Amino acid sequence: MSPKNEILQVARNAREASRVLANLPTSTKNLTLEGMAEALIQSAPKLKKANAMDVTSARKAGLSAAMIDRLTLSDRVLQEMANSLKEIALLPDPVGEVNKMWKRPNGLWVGKMRIPLGVIGIIYESRPNVTSDAAGLCLKAGNAVILRGGSEAIHSNLAIAEILQRVGKEHAIPAEAIQVISTTSRQAVKEMLQLEEYIDVIIPRGGEDLIRFVVSHSKIPVIKHYKGVCHVFVDATADLEMAQTISYNAKVQRPGVCNAMETLLVHREIASQFLPPMAEKFQAAGVELRGCPETRRILKSIKAAQEADWTAEYLDLILAVRVVAGLDEAIAHIIRYGSSHTDSIVTRDYANAQRFLREVPSSTVLVNASTRFSDGFELGLGAEIGISTSKLHAFGPMGVEELTTTKFIVYGSGQIRT
Amino acid sequence: MSPKNEILQVARNAREASRVLANLPTSTKNLTLEGMAEALIQSAPKLKKANAMDVTSARKAGLSAAMIDRLTLSDRVLQEMANSLKEIALLPDPVGEVNKMWKRPNGLWVGKMRIPLGVIGIIYESRPNVTSDAAGLCLKAGNAVILRGGSEAIHSNLAIAEILQRVGKEHAIPAEAIQVISTTSRQAVKEMLQLEEYIDVIIPRGGEDLIRFVVSHSKIPVIKHYKGVCHVFVDATADLEMAQTISYNAKVQRPGVCNAMETLLVHREIASQFLPPMAEKFQAAGVELRGCPETRRILKSIKAAQEADWTAEYLDLILAVRVVAGLDEAIAHIIRYGSSHTDSIVTRDYANAQRFLREVPSSTVLVNASTRFSDGFELGLGAEIGISTSKLHAFGPMGVEELTTTKFIVYGSGQIRT
Repeated sequence: MSPKNEILQVARNAREASRVLANLPTSTKNLTLEGMAEALIQSAPKLKKANAMDVTSARKAGLSAAMIDRLTLSDRVLQEMANSLKEIALLPDPVGEVNKMWKRPNGLWVGKMRIPLGVIGIIYESRPNVTSDAAGLCLKAGNAVILRGGSEAIHSNLAIAEILQRVGKEHAIPAEAIQVISTTSRQAVKEMLQLEEYIDVIIPRGGEDLIRFVVSHSKIPVIKHYKGVCHVFVDATADLEMAQTISYNAKVQRPGVCNAMETLLVHREIASQFLPPMAEKFQAAGVELRGCPETRRILKSIKAAQEADWTAEYLDLILAVRVVAGLDEAIAHIIRYGSSHTDSIVTRDYANAQRFLREVPSSTVLVNASTRFSDGFELGLGAEIGISTSKLHAFGPMGVEELTTTKFIVYGSGQIRT
Repeated sequence: MSPKNEILQVARNAREASRVLANLPTSTKNLTLEGMAEALIQSAPKLKKANAMDVTSARKAGLSAAMIDRLTLSDRVLQEMANSLKEIALLPDPVGEVNKMWKRPNGLWVGKMRIPLGVIGIIYESRPNVTSDAAGLCLKAGNAVILRGGSEAIHSNLAIAEILQRVGKEHAIPAEAIQVISTTSRQAVKEMLQLEEYIDVIIPRGGEDLIRFVVSHSKIPVIKHYKGVCHVFVDATADLEMAQTISYNAKVQRPGVCNAMETLLVHREIASQFLPPMAEKFQAAGVELRGCPETRRILKSIKAAQEADWTAEYLDLILAVRVVAGLDEAIAHIIRYGSSHTDSIVTRDYANAQRFLREVPSSTVLVNASTRFSDGFELGLGAEIGISTSKLHAFGPMGVEELTTTKFIVYGSGQIRT
């Protein structure tokens, strides 16, 4: 079968399977998820064998140690994948939920019922754990999923999917509920992105290049995550010890992720008091600081920040630092240079806390807490399929509920329109 | 200025204006909407003069009487536009709403706050009343709007926008909150659809051709409405008088709209009792019936339905009729041939009513009521910006709330991630 025909067939089968998935009892979904978790552990030898083929190819192709590490299915990674499926089983089932109903003057009762999206396409790179995480989340939300991972993980992904499908079948879930596309060319992605009749949404997970490619070629709606240029603003009234702890955590605890701080904004009134000990702590952790002119009058030895530093997503131990005149300038800076991802204020001022929460148009806005909490698990969604930096459908961390939509349901007693 | 530069400038200005709009007090928005309603009435002579230019061109271009009728700004149409703005003023303001907050084990309080989408692009045809309706809805939801109407209504649209902008300015709302693109070429639409940095969502309103063009060319998320192939299923236990009233209303009351019934499904057990008097009523109203073989054994004189009839959106006094073995076959038919728009069951059976509501995956599903209620006003949204037949972000009729999204807000007391 040609790649084009394979993908068309996969998409059609997914649409068929989605009809079954939409009406699965919650108990069936949960038992299946628990069975999948067990099967991943029991099939460890088989999975590692498939994974070894990918790792060998990756070594031959000269991939970096970091990439090979991400690709490798160790016992720890397999246990995490199994735990994740068990956690998804414990989440509430969003499908069928009706939050409220209202009565119309003509006696109609109207409500909105939560329903699955239908068929979800996930386009991702290297990490094979995404295969089981995404499959589990989509199953819980009643969706069929089409997984298109990278060529470097294709044997691992196919082996994982086969195990999940086998467990699904034991619970009368069609194998087409979880499908991996075996063709890993970019052309295959392009074909997939045309099938708006069969696929309801595409979620790309990977670098900005991959995401821009998907957005440019897709007729299907895309939920996307470009980048995280996150800020902490230390206000004049901040508890400076708290501000130091939060800023340090936001930058240093895991610098390579999208919710790490990239720019620190400091109120002029406390800058000369706050910055020197803060800089010392950062420098001890190996953080390179790049400052605005005013910052550099206080921290004389640091590099000057260029215009490009204010929009940089370093994902590294580098931090841009700017002194601002107050809340207005801080918010204006965040709006101008930020990426609408995650921003935090450290303050003791009630009005400034409220204004920051309301006026910063980012997907997660915090008061007196680290930007690192912008994460589905940390915010209490129970799981995360990704973080959306575009506003349509979902904005910010996405859990199981964000893999559903709503339909109107109407109870009548013979009403007609006049 | 070249069309490309004009549109880029418009989009940038809209983004700037959206910052102001997002933080407008509710009272300012409502007073502005009321002022706009008054100004439309007071400026009737000016508006009619601009409109006359469009109508004259349309006559010269040989447009149909129906199209010229839709284009014409009569006193009645102007009054409706004003009333619509007044009604929007009375709606609750969705911006800033936080439905619930939850506490995390580490003491963080987390909630989701409703915020504007930002900048909304509306691409539409002929009816100039869309200009004020869409502008009013976007303003209420705190969004800037870019309106790109058809060339046939350009003078009317520009005149309406000018009046709305003037009233806005009196309330310190930037003129760029409501902008009409003066270039009416398709190329201008293409340029607009590239500006994902400045425009958050595109809502096309018009024929299927226009919508497919927009979806094919857009990098910006599109909320789209393809077509409405709506069904009424008359179950074996239906109150046949109610079934007749509902079916008649769904087909005849306004056949040219998307929520009119296109296919009638009848349970075999009551077909021979229900169909003859129903057919008589339809035929008296000038409805052409096209039946399946079983229907034609009961209604001998009607045309045979072809396969294409089951997917047809007639928007006319034509109706496809099919006899089915029961609920399962009715639901299967709707899933196979329908357009996920609006479907209704007439029944006295409790279990069938519930199954139909749950299992039919359409954006509006009704029991014992006409499909014609699938409409933002009728369902109690207070207004309607359009009906979405795709599942992402919104599914079904969209009101003011659907022109917003949510962000996470987090109240901390110094929490960091460990």
